[in-house]
Amino acid sequence: MIQALDHIALAVPDIDEAIRVWSTLTGAALLHREFVEAQNTHVAFLDLGGFRLELIAPGSPESTVAKFLEKRGPGLHHIALKSPDGQQQLTDFASRGARLINDKLRPGAENTMVGFVHPGALGGVLVEVVEHPAAADHR
Amino acid sequence: MIQALDHIALAVPDIDEAIRVWSTLTGAALLHREFVEAQNTHVAFLDLGGFRLELIAPGSPESTVAKFLEKRGPGLHHIALKSPDGQQQLTDFASRGARLINDKLRPGAENTMVGFVHPGALGGVLVEVVEHPAAADHR
Repeated sequence: MIQALDHIALAVPDIDEAIRVWSTLTGAALLHREFVEAQNTHVAFLDLGGFRLELIAPGSPESTVAKFLEKRGPGLHHIALKSPDGQQQLTDFASRGARLINDKLRPGAENTMVGFVHPGALGGVLVEVVEHPAAADHR
Repeated sequence: MIQALDHIALAVPDIDEAIRVWSTLTGAALLHREFVEAQNTHVAFLDLGGFRLELIAPGSPESTVAKFLEKRGPGLHHIALKSPDGQQQLTDFASRGARLINDKLRPGAENTMVGFVHPGALGGVLVEVVEHPAAADHR
């Protein structure tokens, strides 16, 4: 079950520069930043008119985000759908014929558990399923 | 002033096929579809977990969306920010150093007025400013 749009994510080469540009131009406020070890990425969440914009920068040239930037350039990277049961949502996607990148949830930013659906399944759009820890509610 | 995320837009080669795929895989419901003459595009809006997903397909090979598909392939196209005064919001972007694609608002889908900020201004992300007609409220 998809509850809401959790966030929209952008691939950026430099996290500090991206935070500066988005807050200057749109007035977006920085909510949170961290280094996500499991994904080798620097991430920042901004509040832009009530929705969450995620900025993702590579932790090193081996990061998958570095490869994305090399291939596609900076810009929109994925959309994340919030689900109360992320593993079930991944299974639902697969049972409807969608190819998954992650069969099982793995750790994401902010203590979430996340899994990705292959962009080939949804018209070229990389879709992340996000389950937040039970105590937290970001919407 | 940015009030909210109005929608996320995807470029698709075929509007009917894209509606079918997104509703089958995510359970999204079709809200509205139309041909937007001013932009030579077929558009459809879907409700996906309470947010609006726009699908955009070219009206003909001369459409700018056709050029986008040729260059980048199908996928995420732009994000649209809702503003009560779209023209003022465009002017604000410009005064903060952002390059605009449209200096003045022009007609968009659903009787909105819209204007685009150049993706070079915001890290490769094409941003649309949307002003809804006074009577309507889509959030």
